[in-house]
Amino acid sequence: MSEDQHAAAMRFIFEAGVLKHAARTGWWFAGVKHPETIAEHSHRTALIGMILAAMEGADPARVTMLCVLHDTQETRTTDLPHIAKRYLAAAPNTTITADQIADCPPAVTDTITAAVTEYEAGETLDAIVARDADKLECLVQAVEYRHQGIDNVQRWIDSSRAALRTDSAHRLAEAALTGQPLAWLTPPARPE
Amino acid sequence: MSEDQHAAAMRFIFEAGVLKHAARTGWWFAGVKHPETIAEHSHRTALIGMILAAMEGADPARVTMLCVLHDTQETRTTDLPHIAKRYLAAAPNTTITADQIADCPPAVTDTITAAVTEYEAGETLDAIVARDADKLECLVQAVEYRHQGIDNVQRWIDSSRAALRTDSAHRLAEAALTGQPLAWLTPPARPE
Amino acid sequence: MSEDQHAAAMRFIFEAGVLKHAARTGWWFAGVKHPETIAEHSHRTALIGMILAAMEGADPARVTMLCVLHDTQETRTTDLPHIAKRYLAAAPNTTITADQIADCPPAVTDTITAAVTEYEAGETLDAIVARDADKLECLVQAVEYRHQGIDNVQRWIDSSRAALRTDSAHRLAEAALTGQPLAWLTPPARPE
Amino acid sequence: MSEDQHAAAMRFIFEAGVLKHAARTGWWFAGVKHPETIAEHSHRTALIGMILAAMEGADPARVTMLCVLHDTQETRTTDLPHIAKRYLAAAPNTTITADQIADCPPAVTDTITAAVTEYEAGETLDAIVARDADKLECLVQAVEYRHQGIDNVQRWIDSSRAALRTDSAHRLAEAALTGQPLAWLTPPARPE
Amino acid sequence: MSEDQHAAAMRFIFEAGVLKHAARTGWWFAGVKHPETIAEHSHRTALIGMILAAMEGADPARVTMLCVLHDTQETRTTDLPHIAKRYLAAAPNTTITADQIADCPPAVTDTITAAVTEYEAGETLDAIVARDADKLECLVQAVEYRHQGIDNVQRWIDSSRAALRTDSAHRLAEAALTGQPLAWLTPPARPE
Amino acid sequence: MSEDQHAAAMRFIFEAGVLKHAARTGWWFAGVKHPETIAEHSHRTALIGMILAAMEGADPARVTMLCVLHDTQETRTTDLPHIAKRYLAAAPNTTITADQIADCPPAVTDTITAAVTEYEAGETLDAIVARDADKLECLVQAVEYRHQGIDNVQRWIDSSRAALRTDSAHRLAEAALTGQPLAWLTPPARPE
Repeated sequence: MSEDQHAAAMRFIFEAGVLKHAARTGWWFAGVKHPETIAEHSHRTALIGMILAAMEGADPARVTMLCVLHDTQETRTTDLPHIAKRYLAAAPNTTITADQIADCPPAVTDTITAAVTEYEAGETLDAIVARDADKLECLVQAVEYRHQGIDNVQRWIDSSRAALRTDSAHRLAEAALTGQPLAWLTPPARPE
Repeated sequence: MSEDQHAAAMRFIFEAGVLKHAARTGWWFAGVKHPETIAEHSHRTALIGMILAAMEGADPARVTMLCVLHDTQETRTTDLPHIAKRYLAAAPNTTITADQIADCPPAVTDTITAAVTEYEAGETLDAIVARDADKLECLVQAVEYRHQGIDNVQRWIDSSRAALRTDSAHRLAEAALTGQPLAWLTPPARPE
Repeated sequence: MSEDQHAAAMRFIFEAGVLKHAARTGWWFAGVKHPETIAEHSHRTALIGMILAAMEGADPARVTMLCVLHDTQETRTTDLPHIAKRYLAAAPNTTITADQIADCPPAVTDTITAAVTEYEAGETLDAIVARDADKLECLVQAVEYRHQGIDNVQRWIDSSRAALRTDSAHRLAEAALTGQPLAWLTPPARPE
Repeated sequence: MSEDQHAAAMRFIFEAGVLKHAARTGWWFAGVKHPETIAEHSHRTALIGMILAAMEGADPARVTMLCVLHDTQETRTTDLPHIAKRYLAAAPNTTITADQIADCPPAVTDTITAAVTEYEAGETLDAIVARDADKLECLVQAVEYRHQGIDNVQRWIDSSRAALRTDSAHRLAEAALTGQPLAWLTPPARPE
Repeated sequence: MSEDQHAAAMRFIFEAGVLKHAARTGWWFAGVKHPETIAEHSHRTALIGMILAAMEGADPARVTMLCVLHDTQETRTTDLPHIAKRYLAAAPNTTITADQIADCPPAVTDTITAAVTEYEAGETLDAIVARDADKLECLVQAVEYRHQGIDNVQRWIDSSRAALRTDSAHRLAEAALTGQPLAWLTPPARPE
Repeated sequence: MSEDQHAAAMRFIFEAGVLKHAARTGWWFAGVKHPETIAEHSHRTALIGMILAAMEGADPARVTMLCVLHDTQETRTTDLPHIAKRYLAAAPNTTITADQIADCPPAVTDTITAAVTEYEAGETLDAIVARDADKLECLVQAVEYRHQGIDNVQRWIDSSRAALRTDSAHRLAEAALTGQPLAWLTPPARPE
């Protein structure tokens, strides 16, 4: 691998740093001044994807990888809220990824291109599970914002839930809606 | 899978939401009032791990998974700065993970336990690459903070670099130190 | 005017509240975690427009109004960074404004439609001055970020300056680049 | 116009940048850690003023200009909460403005002086409408904070409403109090 | 006193600056993204301690000093949430303080060592009052967060209240729970 | 002590919570978007006062108490920047304190009144040391902001330093200006 290829990989890594600053913009509408970032959303999405994959018999590692990548194009477009789609026609995410990782070492380009392509097509079980993870993370965040005082989150809960496709995701959504964010601090006693 | 198991999985997902708030505390020392969160650090660590794995012939998906999990115990301990180790004796991370995912569906518990155990042991190529990703992410962040005006970042660069083990990580570190965070906006022209 | 028309006007006012949260996204690239909001940018743009208008013989009040409105469409699209234009085709801003103020009292709709149309066309002296104010505000903000430690602001200075059209804007830009943000605290003594 | 006059105008523009940082301090009392800035308040005040002017037959452009300027003196005094008036005797705002724009090009000084003087006198229809816009913006913000979980906003709603003088402002206040901040995302269907 | 001793004192002062950045981490669990800092908590704790001391016949100045120092060790350990105690064994705070003020002028070392030792032992009336102030401050903050929309604060109220030892602290806690944070703006009329 | 007196004390404690939100406003001029709060400043001021008192032979506990109280009036006036003094005539701080603690238990009122009166008079050694602590804290913060990239801090350093009166404060200022904020992480080796 050449020095130029390392430089290209590092450019992509620096670019991904933008996701540490870039807000999940839809929450601005609900009144959240400093919403979670795309990186924060993507991290828990990956964790949820790993869990869902184990529950659904998908590949946890593969799903994790799809989830980590699923919003990386938003460095260049920002996180476009749903209403933006009325006014903006977007190039496919695979086009943006191709620009982002051009000139990287071929093994890197091949790995990322394959993963993004699979996620965007949304046809494999791994991709279906990864997409459910994205929606479920949004639903969980909406529940958390409600516990923090934000009262206008129902539309995010409804639209996320309606998009879920796997049985496990539906059952986890049910658990989120009937549970308490702080329940982990005081779990039920385990039977002896 | 029982309803209780879904509730347990959701408790872990809610717990992971703490990583969206919890700061990478070492940066407070350097004067960063609102440093990146553990979730933000972990997301880019996973992306770097994926890239490093492709370059080093490791398993990109597996490494991504190890990276997503690598700091998840910090919901319960916070991110302890290096100097804290003088004053605190910590239980193994595997102990914390065991508490966090107790009562989850067995497939979830097995998947996460195996990944955390592998990362903590640090012996497989995938674990070595994942650990390099953690260090490299810190180095890249230090470079970025320097470009944002923080002048006291050299110790983070030095200690991160000294811990790198793979050749690719060393070469990427070199690229980070000689590059510019904004270079991705104006990449070199590609040969025709 | 009907109650429905007042409700429509209030919907637009609530919508404009999003601009108090929505970031000027390009600064995320430069490493600014919490950049100024679109509302903050727009307020000083309006003040600069008023000043420029007085200097250029345009209508200060009219220019102020064009400036206050110039980014109000971004509630629905976010502030798209320059690089986004490679990937997104956008409807005209006048289309978005029309949706935003539909059903308002006719006097409101007429006033705002005329102002947005004039600004977007960019042909009248008032519109030219308002557009210069937008660019000049960005340049001044870049200078300020540089004084706050952000080192990668030159591209914003260069692109803003290159877009200026009026002589007064060029002279103010020169004053910004050779001045100090804090100079107002200790202005030069006035001749007796 | 001399170079010194341009430098003076730029000093005022830099000074106005303080309004991007300076908080609307009264909200600290209600528990808002990072309230909107004076610039953010002033931007929506200007938009509301423009709308109110159209509804009341005032001059939308002139009112917009008065609103953009109405708190610009607060760079030097901060936004003094109501209770501060018990302890502080303040010079007239026109005195502060005079200091801020001393040495600017005469056309700038004349334009701004006239506008601030008119607003402070509060006698013309344009000034009355601009003052109503200031109060109405505060009321709308209070409603929004309540939807974000802040429970102690009633006093801001009451005092703002009590100060309104125009019929349109009263009707918009009614619409704010009976409406939903998110209503703009799903407006009522328009009759065919 | 030598120059080295002054340098050592200044190192401790710089170190204490970390408390301006370091979060009270337990609130991350309740969903507070940017909780108050340790410095902010400590300041009001000191004020409460002074008040409690006056009410309980303790030494207000001495209690204030104990309170200002009571969390200064957390520069090196962060504010460890309660659950962390399951996983971390900590050195005594007096050990950390000794490291922090080593090499300071002897009068400084003696003063701070004596105060921290007294507080940690918790046996004198001044120490008991200072510890009550710490708990009471947490309770008051919990009440405030509840008024700001955070719904999961009861456990902080309960655990703080249960730890109170003085009668005055119990009565102030009662006043906090039945009062309103904004009551100071409109106190009851005083009898003539 | 009556229930009403406890309620009055709690009103003052709630009021003091405003200092956790209220910014040290002068830093807005230097471009710091979210400066430290008055509570954060006051906490380190108290710590510095304690240290200075030990060095100067003053009463560390008394000085700590004066420092904790020294800006508590700013809940009602905000932190007025220096330039505000041109435009605002302020009542004495003792007047504000009297309003804040009216109706508290007499022991509380007496304690706080005496301390504020002593600080405001500025004649005793304890008051002189406390005032030096206030200035020195500002100087140290300015040095820290400079290390964080803010370039316009010299005026805060100069004005703070010029106001120092005790020899120890001057020597600590010298140590701050020649030292490094991070030096505490790697103190010089101690002689064996």
